[in-house]
Amino acid sequence: MNASLFRFSIYIAAICGLYLATAMLIPAMVDLYYGHSDWQIFALCSFMVGGLSLMTAMATRCPPPVFTKRLGFLLVNLLWTVFSVVGALPILFSGQVTGFAQALFESVSAVTTTGSTVMAGLDHMPPGLLVWRSLLQWLGGIGIVALGLFVLPFLRVGGMSFFKMESSDIADKPFARLASFTRAFFAIYLGITLLCTIAYDFAGMSHFDAINHALTTVATGGFSTHDASFAYFRSGLLLWVSTFFMTVCSLPFSILIVFIVRGRLDALRDPQIGVFIAYLGVFSVATAVYNHLMNGVEFASALTHSFFNFSSVLSTTGFASQDYTLWGPFVVMAAFFATFMGGCSGSTAGGIKSHRFVILANIVMIGLRKLIYPNAVYSVRYGSQTVDADTQRTVFLFFSAYLFLWVVGSLAMSAFGYDLLTSTSSVITALSNVGPGVGEIVGPAGNFSTLNEPALYVLSLLMLLGRLEVLTVLVLLMPMFWRT
Amino acid sequence: MNASLFRFSIYIAAICGLYLATAMLIPAMVDLYYGHSDWQIFALCSFMVGGLSLMTAMATRCPPPVFTKRLGFLLVNLLWTVFSVVGALPILFSGQVTGFAQALFESVSAVTTTGSTVMAGLDHMPPGLLVWRSLLQWLGGIGIVALGLFVLPFLRVGGMSFFKMESSDIADKPFARLASFTRAFFAIYLGITLLCTIAYDFAGMSHFDAINHALTTVATGGFSTHDASFAYFRSGLLLWVSTFFMTVCSLPFSILIVFIVRGRLDALRDPQIGVFIAYLGVFSVATAVYNHLMNGVEFASALTHSFFNFSSVLSTTGFASQDYTLWGPFVVMAAFFATFMGGCSGSTAGGIKSHRFVILANIVMIGLRKLIYPNAVYSVRYGSQTVDADTQRTVFLFFSAYLFLWVVGSLAMSAFGYDLLTSTSSVITALSNVGPGVGEIVGPAGNFSTLNEPALYVLSLLMLLGRLEVLTVLVLLMPMFWRT
Repeated sequence: MNASLFRFSIYIAAICGLYLATAMLIPAMVDLYYGHSDWQIFALCSFMVGGLSLMTAMATRCPPPVFTKRLGFLLVNLLWTVFSVVGALPILFSGQVTGFAQALFESVSAVTTTGSTVMAGLDHMPPGLLVWRSLLQWLGGIGIVALGLFVLPFLRVGGMSFFKMESSDIADKPFARLASFTRAFFAIYLGITLLCTIAYDFAGMSHFDAINHALTTVATGGFSTHDASFAYFRSGLLLWVSTFFMTVCSLPFSILIVFIVRGRLDALRDPQIGVFIAYLGVFSVATAVYNHLMNGVEFASALTHSFFNFSSVLSTTGFASQDYTLWGPFVVMAAFFATFMGGCSGSTAGGIKSHRFVILANIVMIGLRKLIYPNAVYSVRYGSQTVDADTQRTVFLFFSAYLFLWVVGSLAMSAFGYDLLTSTSSVITALSNVGPGVGEIVGPAGNFSTLNEPALYVLSLLMLLGRLEVLTVLVLLMPMFWRT
Repeated sequence: MNASLFRFSIYIAAICGLYLATAMLIPAMVDLYYGHSDWQIFALCSFMVGGLSLMTAMATRCPPPVFTKRLGFLLVNLLWTVFSVVGALPILFSGQVTGFAQALFESVSAVTTTGSTVMAGLDHMPPGLLVWRSLLQWLGGIGIVALGLFVLPFLRVGGMSFFKMESSDIADKPFARLASFTRAFFAIYLGITLLCTIAYDFAGMSHFDAINHALTTVATGGFSTHDASFAYFRSGLLLWVSTFFMTVCSLPFSILIVFIVRGRLDALRDPQIGVFIAYLGVFSVATAVYNHLMNGVEFASALTHSFFNFSSVLSTTGFASQDYTLWGPFVVMAAFFATFMGGCSGSTAGGIKSHRFVILANIVMIGLRKLIYPNAVYSVRYGSQTVDADTQRTVFLFFSAYLFLWVVGSLAMSAFGYDLLTSTSSVITALSNVGPGVGEIVGPAGNFSTLNEPALYVLSLLMLLGRLEVLTVLVLLMPMFWRT
């Protein structure tokens, strides 16, 4: 491993630290505005992080080396680690958590847009801290979409390549240059956030709540400013507004760009979108019918809560409007498996993601056919494209690694003393970056604050693994990676 | 689909019915010997089944068509269905179950060598019925080894081919002809059963118990003649005897044959054996240490129970010596995941099986390497052999189908009203043909008799699916299968 790769990676991480130091001034200003003394914590953290980052950046400044896969993997891991640790500092110093394990968990949960929280009493939390949590999620959302668009496809671990998107659009290149594409991306991300804020505001939230929830909705993160999450607002309209934005933000971002900028709907023909919408619809309607029949809940209300909570889980946001695990065993089960699924590739959503299920289903169908006609030649397709053997292998690799981590993580959690339900569901909700699991402790009505420190560290690691598409992190464990 | 295929399949099924009618005379004689009036039920069933089978066989007798894969799939499914339904008749007429759903469940659990039971009060059950249950498991064990040796490899859905085994042994063909191989197979199956009976007898069981438990140990089935299973005997020695035989019978049968007949140990170098022994050792020792540290159980005793219960789960037998789920959450979790694993291919054990994990681990390692060096050429290996793309695809197909059935089955069970733990674990214990799951109802201290009828039918179907290596049954769902 070349020393210049490390040097350059640290340089980029320091630049990232500078941006975060600047971002800390926003909660500082919010606290100042509301007259809360916490502004000092943010100002101090900003000063410390900013100073340290500046010194590091100056010390490690160097011409960029050739961009190799190895540099890519190193950079991505380092950036998200720095992002998480720096994010944890103001949380730790705020004194609202019991120690570093909790602060780190909260920060990782934010930057990975998971949304599990160890904090109780959000309703009376200093406003700056609430904004910091929301802001970290929003920035984490940008980070992950950018990663999915520009880096992961190059590393071949998933995502929807900007370059591929372009080549399918070669006739009239609308974003011929990367820079204009990047600008469009930021503009749209910001635009949707604004739109979501306004919608929440009109539907009845306070300005403060509207901004915070918009930041965490667009990032499909799920942090709220109230312990009761969306149940606090008691508004069916707000649930539908949120359902709409959570669903939109689970769609591939590159396709949103094409759709919004050029008004072209044909990009929506991407098979993973149909599958995602289909399983959202099936889960929601089935649950609503079940809840209506079994618990006598009025159907319209059942449908509202069903759609809200399933789009929340499938988009890996994690807002809650009710403790849906009380609706009955079928709903618990559906929520449990939905936690594995996730949204579309190239969005802010986590999970295994629907494009992998599309490819998987294709491989399975062809496998079954080949059992009957072993010599027939079939090719695995994704929409109108043929899926090459490399991509098929990566999908297989991803599934295996995902399930392996689920097993190992669950065994670890159970060794720390948690029952099967809590262990398996907390691990998968962390790995898929959803937020709530099932069971008393980590369910939608629970709180992660009672988990012990080893458990918090394990879940933090799993959230990062899930967010970086698992393989990006696992590859660091190969001795081969570190050899020259 | 050719009509002659159906005709021939029904003919073979009728022949199978004739054998079963004959087998029913054994429990009839046992009941006569013990002076129990149930002998009439077995005699009557034997007469009815025998007569019907004979008529059917005469009506459908035909020259065998060319053996195609289609015929293979059809035949295997039909045989196991007939086996299950015929096996259920004496159980139904004995009046010891509430109805056909329970009788079918018990019979399917027997012929698939699963070992889950809906019957309580085994200690006072008519002896003929107990023998019938044990005998069905033993026959099911023969059936599945034969299937794995002679049919499944031809259908390309798993198993350890007799032909492949031979070709790797080509220098001095010890079983050049199928007939002598088949004789050796039956002799060894019978021989191990006898050995196991004698060992149980010497270690303290009554003759009746020794025979019954030997029949169900060798088949890795797990039916007992006592509600308390092995806990009834309160003997550490018996637990170790059983552990030995359960483990031996989870090894590939073809390799046992080479080992026993020719005294050659090198066949034990098959990688799946090492992996199976390794995960048995790791799970057992880890659990014993955990049980010793957490519950203060004496280490030797902890190790005995740990090895017994994990070899019981991993060999998919399902005997129990204690309610190990009370040892703590880590043990519950370990047992839960162990239920997916299973023994070696070509044995009487079920589950995903260790050879698939060997291939899977290889694919994953190579996948990770290719993330770093995308253009390097690696081949997936199984021991010293290269695994071709076809086999890799089938492994992938199997995993996907297995997990898919687990998800769908669990959703169904939860819709029938069972909690997450009961649903997920009853489905996987059925699919893997283990026997006990975790949780109050289906755990090692529980009983399947309280499950409702839809649940029993779903679990029966899953046991058959698991036993026939999943794909063999799923292929019937393809419309393509039925077209000419």
